[in-house]
Amino acid sequence: MGSMSPKITGELLRQLRQAMKNCKYFSEPIQAYIVPSGDAHQSEYIAPCDCRREFICGFNGSAGTAIVTEQYAAMWTDGRYFLQASQQMDNNWTLMKMGLKETPSQEDWLISVLPENSKVGVDPWIIAADQWKNMSKALASAGHSLVAVQDNLIDAVWTDRPKRPSTQLRTLGLEYTGLSWQDKITSLRAKMTERKISWFVATALDEIAWLFNLRGADIEYNPVFFAYTIVGMNTIRFFVDLKRLSDPILRDHLQLDSPSKPELSIQTFPYESVYTELQAICAALGPKDKVWICDKASCSLTQVIPKAQRTPIPYTPLCLAKAVKNASEIQGMKMAHIKDAVALCELFAWLEKEIPKGTVTEISAADKAEELRSQQKGFVGLSFPTISSVGPNGAIIHYRPLPETNRTLTMNEVYLIDSGAQYVDGTTDVTRTIHFGTPSAFEKECFTYVLKGHIAVSAAVFPNGTKGHLLDSFARAALWESGLDYLHGTGHGVGCFLNVHEGPCGISYKTFADEPLEAGMIVSDEPGYYEDGSFGIRLENVVLVVPAKPKYNYRNRGSLTFEPLTLVPIQVKMMNTEQLTQKERDWVNEYHRKCQEVVGAELERQGRKEALEWLVRETQPII
Amino acid sequence: MGSMSPKITGELLRQLRQAMKNCKYFSEPIQAYIVPSGDAHQSEYIAPCDCRREFICGFNGSAGTAIVTEQYAAMWTDGRYFLQASQQMDNNWTLMKMGLKETPSQEDWLISVLPENSKVGVDPWIIAADQWKNMSKALASAGHSLVAVQDNLIDAVWTDRPKRPSTQLRTLGLEYTGLSWQDKITSLRAKMTERKISWFVATALDEIAWLFNLRGADIEYNPVFFAYTIVGMNTIRFFVDLKRLSDPILRDHLQLDSPSKPELSIQTFPYESVYTELQAICAALGPKDKVWICDKASCSLTQVIPKAQRTPIPYTPLCLAKAVKNASEIQGMKMAHIKDAVALCELFAWLEKEIPKGTVTEISAADKAEELRSQQKGFVGLSFPTISSVGPNGAIIHYRPLPETNRTLTMNEVYLIDSGAQYVDGTTDVTRTIHFGTPSAFEKECFTYVLKGHIAVSAAVFPNGTKGHLLDSFARAALWESGLDYLHGTGHGVGCFLNVHEGPCGISYKTFADEPLEAGMIVSDEPGYYEDGSFGIRLENVVLVVPAKPKYNYRNRGSLTFEPLTLVPIQVKMMNTEQLTQKERDWVNEYHRKCQEVVGAELERQGRKEALEWLVRETQPII
Repeated sequence: MGSMSPKITGELLRQLRQAMKNCKYFSEPIQAYIVPSGDAHQSEYIAPCDCRREFICGFNGSAGTAIVTEQYAAMWTDGRYFLQASQQMDNNWTLMKMGLKETPSQEDWLISVLPENSKVGVDPWIIAADQWKNMSKALASAGHSLVAVQDNLIDAVWTDRPKRPSTQLRTLGLEYTGLSWQDKITSLRAKMTERKISWFVATALDEIAWLFNLRGADIEYNPVFFAYTIVGMNTIRFFVDLKRLSDPILRDHLQLDSPSKPELSIQTFPYESVYTELQAICAALGPKDKVWICDKASCSLTQVIPKAQRTPIPYTPLCLAKAVKNASEIQGMKMAHIKDAVALCELFAWLEKEIPKGTVTEISAADKAEELRSQQKGFVGLSFPTISSVGPNGAIIHYRPLPETNRTLTMNEVYLIDSGAQYVDGTTDVTRTIHFGTPSAFEKECFTYVLKGHIAVSAAVFPNGTKGHLLDSFARAALWESGLDYLHGTGHGVGCFLNVHEGPCGISYKTFADEPLEAGMIVSDEPGYYEDGSFGIRLENVVLVVPAKPKYNYRNRGSLTFEPLTLVPIQVKMMNTEQLTQKERDWVNEYHRKCQEVVGAELERQGRKEALEWLVRETQPII
Repeated sequence: MGSMSPKITGELLRQLRQAMKNCKYFSEPIQAYIVPSGDAHQSEYIAPCDCRREFICGFNGSAGTAIVTEQYAAMWTDGRYFLQASQQMDNNWTLMKMGLKETPSQEDWLISVLPENSKVGVDPWIIAADQWKNMSKALASAGHSLVAVQDNLIDAVWTDRPKRPSTQLRTLGLEYTGLSWQDKITSLRAKMTERKISWFVATALDEIAWLFNLRGADIEYNPVFFAYTIVGMNTIRFFVDLKRLSDPILRDHLQLDSPSKPELSIQTFPYESVYTELQAICAALGPKDKVWICDKASCSLTQVIPKAQRTPIPYTPLCLAKAVKNASEIQGMKMAHIKDAVALCELFAWLEKEIPKGTVTEISAADKAEELRSQQKGFVGLSFPTISSVGPNGAIIHYRPLPETNRTLTMNEVYLIDSGAQYVDGTTDVTRTIHFGTPSAFEKECFTYVLKGHIAVSAAVFPNGTKGHLLDSFARAALWESGLDYLHGTGHGVGCFLNVHEGPCGISYKTFADEPLEAGMIVSDEPGYYEDGSFGIRLENVVLVVPAKPKYNYRNRGSLTFEPLTLVPIQVKMMNTEQLTQKERDWVNEYHRKCQEVVGAELERQGRKEALEWLVRETQPII
């Protein structure tokens, strides 16, 4: 999270306000400037060069929007970040606490402070098309207008702004991807033909990485690289820093020098030229040509496409295809999870030994987890910042240990670790909650409710075509019955050596727009319970959607269920086993049997005896 | 359902096409005319004078839209009605089977058959504002236009069209309503003030009936009457057939002759003058005045309000207030359900005796149910057409027995009866599935899954603020686990001596726009299972949302659960009690104990001995 002392922003704001009046950037001065989080690809995690909102206000949480007017500067963020934002921003800034009744929306606030007929500027590359539409409409209804400022005004005042990363690209062979990029292009084009679409504009970095079977390291935790792609029925345009394409292995992978077929020839262009190339494509569109673009793509690229020919879609065909893992990807994900389980078994065995010495902290435990993971074959890096939290810190859902919050692991408090890694064959994300001494009755009770919820989802059988949000309440029923709950969703899609959070599926009460679950999709199952000021509990497995074979098959729809890919023991000491039904006990025993069998064999192979002993001890059947 | 022989429509279509070219009705001829189901209030059930779609094509199901062009006539309906529609329409008509892949949408079909620059007419009173918007947009994108035809063209050719009903209005006292109409107006105005709204236009018939504590009988099964209301901060305009207002009791109830306060004085206007009055109100609006209208109100009334001042809402404040029943309404609903249970106990005791004689049919059983209900105090009529179905007919979800489908009740087939009544103190809706001989193992198995689903919803504890759709999967989990399901929602809101189906709450996987459940809301809980060609099972109780008191109270949110209002035994013979958990068995026993106690006392009081014996026998505890 970086520093907790406020950033001094007086001079920066003066310069930004100067730029807002500077006609070098636009024909007339603007009265307000919006600085959203995010990059031109609407990435969840962003590169340092794109941390513009952090640069201008000091707040570096993952979600927040800054707005600067001639007189005011305000920053909107949600409840996870109220404390952090108030510590990181100086008093030039007003913290706008989203979710509180008295907090105005950005639109309402702008309307209340702006002089009549104001112009509000925003970088059209950073704002998504759907957000632009809403903001623009609200401002127009009050006589103002939203204007696209092509040069980013933060960049104009950010003298030491880091360069856009351009890391080496890694090619992935068929043994990992299961499908060549050529075959992926062919199946994309088949979908375009089916829907009478002439062009598809890909802007999401994970979709482009998946399409070309390439990985980068431009953004921490996410093995992606900055690029755009435009696919037509006969052409493929690839926009990327051209310096990256000199590697002969890469050139060969992409068949840049000798394409197998003309329609699979990739034309390469500089990253920045996507706008002008898309303009050129649009200028040549026939009246019946339609262009697919995600409705969350940047306003800038979206608006290049004439409205009559633009077909915005909530999820692109690449997003949908990427979500359904093929046999090679599933195999890779399974391997990655076995290696990840080896590292975690070692971690927990080590913690058991070390904690009594009083020398292990949240940070050192997280470091140890990373060290152990890095010993596994094909380790690339972490898949997100490790949440390593003791006692009350565990109740902070998005906690990340900092020197000033760092607590020591003891025999007296619950320890929650939510962590994962990128391996060349797959991505992991696992949460375990462990007590190294004697848990309290209330901690065990809550843990047992969370476990019941976890099992209810993991063991659920449901018809083909069911959307994940319909399973969310299964994870909560046991907590609800006792008057408890958790205020986050139950699961998210997980990429295969890609982003640890991906669409279009998930398990959450919050959305209705998720796509139905399908065999081959991979999601997390992670209910929790958080007792503020005391402890946090979360149990997370990554699970694979697989066909189920129940007794009947109503209307031949077929049924689905989940297979856990994560194979790390769930601490029996934290369970009130008498609170479990026989079915739940059977589930726990079968899960632990599989952990012991599969991960035990790998621990044996790697000669990790202490971890193996720990595993065997922790996977004894319960009765 | 009426006749199953097709209506002869050649001459009618000739006349309608003549009217489509007749400039008496509009400046230019129209090339197509849309005839939706429904009336100017977007009612679910409609009066005979509004059955225009049935008149023009012969099909009289509850859902369907007819479109007539110069050359073609087509009618769209869903899977429930494919057979019926094909039997009721002659071959001037093409049946458009909605839900099948090959069936074009109305928009796509119109675009495919219309000459360029066509005008498509529709009665703007019958089409809802949101539907108009969608259709208009789709047609415009293909160069056509949707035009509002003020005079209904079906009425122009319907020479013997029935008159709009104008039944006697019934006033409801405080003992039933719990709240005077004056207090309802005051609380409506408080909500308007809170949201800075100057006017509210009420168009839904049940909302107007609820607001004024009046009931009518203009539409079968629904105790409503044709009216509009416009409420301002100081005025109340009531649009209704003025002949209805001569009754002195009614005049007194509405304080028409001596209003208690000027702002509670009701100005009465003819039903038809709502359009011109709303025009006059809108002409006098200040620039900051805002007008509330439901987004499902007619296009006609909606468009009178200038767009800048129109605030469309998915649910009106009356809809929301009406859904949360007060103590008097809850008391009334409880009384109505006890009386209803008396009638059903008598019915089932009678059926048990009569069925062996082989003389009871679906129709005669439904008639007997109505006869027994009509003996109860305060009976007004049925709340919907009784679904009385034997064996394979039970698998037809919206079945209604007709002479040509009428089956005899026997000891060999499952009997499903879904029925309800309007009493002056409340509305009922109950489904029981009964076998009078020996059910098959599969019938019992399915019944038990359905019962488990019913209990899972009824006994669920969930936090305040939970939307009903989050409970839907609870009703299906047991069925899903065996590969079974049912293709309808689990529950709907129920009015209090009002419509048996009402918003804004419900329990269904289909919608995300329902309002959160609140203590005092009343919904149905009705999972089912349908084995085509063989039998149907449904178990429906009306349940009241009540506060729950679980062990904990996370973030002081409070918890809710359901209390069954329906008190009719669930047939133990159909249950595999060993498939039930102890908790489920306890629920059944407690439910039956309450049936015996509460309904038993009333049967005793009414001296209905045979029914009482039946009740006692059917409510013995299970082990």
